[in-house]
Amino acid sequence: MKVYFDNAATTAMDDRVIEAMLPFMRNHYGNPSSVHSHGREVRSAIEKSRKKVAELLNTTPSEIFFTSGGTEADNTALVCGIETHGIKHAISSPIEHHAVLHTLEVCEQKGHIQLSMLDVNDKGELDLNQLETLLKANPNSLISLMHANNEIGNLNDLNRIGTLAREYGAFFHSDTVQTMGHYVHDLKNLPVDAIVAGGHKFHGPKGSGFLYVRKDKKIHPFIHGGAQERNMRGGTENVIGIIGIAKALEIAYEYMSSHEVHVKALKKHFIEKLKADIPGVEFNGLSEELDRSLYTVLNVSLPPSEANAGMLLFNLDLAGISASGGSACSSGATVGSHVLRALNHNPERDSVRFSFSRFNTIEEVDYTVGKLKELYAVEV
Amino acid sequence: MKVYFDNAATTAMDDRVIEAMLPFMRNHYGNPSSVHSHGREVRSAIEKSRKKVAELLNTTPSEIFFTSGGTEADNTALVCGIETHGIKHAISSPIEHHAVLHTLEVCEQKGHIQLSMLDVNDKGELDLNQLETLLKANPNSLISLMHANNEIGNLNDLNRIGTLAREYGAFFHSDTVQTMGHYVHDLKNLPVDAIVAGGHKFHGPKGSGFLYVRKDKKIHPFIHGGAQERNMRGGTENVIGIIGIAKALEIAYEYMSSHEVHVKALKKHFIEKLKADIPGVEFNGLSEELDRSLYTVLNVSLPPSEANAGMLLFNLDLAGISASGGSACSSGATVGSHVLRALNHNPERDSVRFSFSRFNTIEEVDYTVGKLKELYAVEV
Ligand SMILES: Cc1ncc(COP(=O)(O)O)c(C=O)c1O
Ligand SMILES: Cc1ncc(COP(=O)(O)O)c(C=O)c1O
Repeated sequence: MKVYFDNAATTAMDDRVIEAMLPFMRNHYGNPSSVHSHGREVRSAIEKSRKKVAELLNTTPSEIFFTSGGTEADNTALVCGIETHGIKHAISSPIEHHAVLHTLEVCEQKGHIQLSMLDVNDKGELDLNQLETLLKANPNSLISLMHANNEIGNLNDLNRIGTLAREYGAFFHSDTVQTMGHYVHDLKNLPVDAIVAGGHKFHGPKGSGFLYVRKDKKIHPFIHGGAQERNMRGGTENVIGIIGIAKALEIAYEYMSSHEVHVKALKKHFIEKLKADIPGVEFNGLSEELDRSLYTVLNVSLPPSEANAGMLLFNLDLAGISASGGSACSSGATVGSHVLRALNHNPERDSVRFSFSRFNTIEEVDYTVGKLKELYAVEV
Repeated sequence: MKVYFDNAATTAMDDRVIEAMLPFMRNHYGNPSSVHSHGREVRSAIEKSRKKVAELLNTTPSEIFFTSGGTEADNTALVCGIETHGIKHAISSPIEHHAVLHTLEVCEQKGHIQLSMLDVNDKGELDLNQLETLLKANPNSLISLMHANNEIGNLNDLNRIGTLAREYGAFFHSDTVQTMGHYVHDLKNLPVDAIVAGGHKFHGPKGSGFLYVRKDKKIHPFIHGGAQERNMRGGTENVIGIIGIAKALEIAYEYMSSHEVHVKALKKHFIEKLKADIPGVEFNGLSEELDRSLYTVLNVSLPPSEANAGMLLFNLDLAGISASGGSACSSGATVGSHVLRALNHNPERDSVRFSFSRFNTIEEVDYTVGKLKELYAVEV
């Protein structure tokens, strides 16, 4: 059995997404900036995609900018948000994705900002009182706090953070890469200034993404060149990427509630079976709490085991199960997870992130728990 | 008849490129940064693509970084080249692409560099004596001069410029977007430090590109995040874009000389027929000189005509002919071409850029000249 439980790293493309992209590979090849007929038909498809994304997120097309992925969108919001709005102080947390952390660290090293990090407890929960204290002391701050953590699944309350941001006049960016397409984002009512998406996290193509920036918080471009994306991003558009991410988001919204029911049931079953079959199993962050964590992510902490120490992912891979030790973006590196470190996770326990999509089944969960049981049977 | 003569804006994808991409849409969806089997098969394909590009350009894979296109690659080379190497002075020319011009202008506005612009004559030729004078006066400069101009097709002598750059210790970036895949770039022997590519200019996908940076001139990343591209560009890789651009470059190199023969013959025929049929026709820049301009670009200046004034592209479009007034990147805007302005082009003459690919035919040229003859018949 081959099991893919690494959907927080990337997802399989939906066939309907591929079908939507193909005509723009085979037939409609014009440059959307060209004014002739070959160009106009492609321009029209891009603008339809932008309109669709804006509709789904309950906002306007002029606030949606297509990018090469979540990382570029995060970089743009942060670097250009700071620059455009003369921001000298930023607030973030140690469990943000590297697309946010490294970007802010570079801004700090260059002397553009002073960077304050919120404390997190051993469950990865933020201290919002500390946030308020920092906002009071530092007018015109930038806040970058993710909607959901990609490793432990913790969901943050964007409404509460955004309300504080408004109260103290802060620019609020949230890395929504893990929730886009899985939860509703109602931008008319959500008090955020910038959010982002990566299409490959919800069955769209890799290398596609978008950035939302609220109308009254406009920022300068990050990539300079032609007048594309209303002068907000130079460069010939990734047409198939744009068509693909919009189609993927459309499908995600259409089936969101049924997918949530299906995936949540898998996760619930996974938790129950692990508890029954693996004595001493624990869950990192809030990932055991179904309503306070992504339904797509379960981060499991296994009891210390000599036989599996450092070999757990490898052993799972041998059994045909693809899972992850942390974010895909750093899983090639030998350094451990910065998120689990921030949670003071016991390094003697191996951790593994299982992450799900609507393509997964109960049988895959049972197979995986069975394998884990075998792997941990020797010593338990 | 539908004629596509806007190949300098973008090209149709080659079927073989599409075929190479499809398995990575349909089957191999893993995240290349994941260490499990789903990830490893994709990682391997990306590294094969990098190796292929490096081989074709006679350089090493560790010097090739995939990007979202030519514009991002230009931005990276310029912004990070300046930053990494503590450069305080840059030299460029008024006929560079906006991906270069706007990026350097922003660096100047931020006070990072002083920017010197080379003079160009009415044919768009650079003054290389002036370049040498500037290099002498400004040690540790950055030079950004394109290999070929996208509007008028002028080819610059990278060897001569690069030799000067080496002599005076300058960092030499060349925007090679218009020559990549159409001319050989032998990086072992070409004295450049950074060159760039956009896949869609040689029958690859839009939104794909790469940057070459010479080993001993390493630069910092532009987009911060995960450890992708050897820590040089954060963000989940555009896998199909990478597969596509490498395949497109492979095909381009395989058939380069036969394509050049075919396309050059079209261009030659086009010039001769225009001269025979349109009295007063002229050619902008060096585009009439077959060996000093891109074989893919012909920039035609038509005699003043009340009937066509400002309507030439529109009239051609009505006749089914897609051509361009300047770079696609600015053709949506109402501002005229900054390149033709730098050449003191007579604004009473309408100009049109015809640009070719191996998919074009002699019949299309004849049809187009026929239409131009009709359009200009009234007054001539
Ligand atoms: C000379 C030149 N440089 C840069 C670019 C930008 O490349 P891309 O559109 O792939 O970002 C183009 C074409 O658009 C070009 O012709
Ligand atoms: C929370 C989070 N932010 C940002 C990213 C980066 O997105 P992308 O890989 O599309 O650049 C990811 C995933 O890789 C993520 O999980």
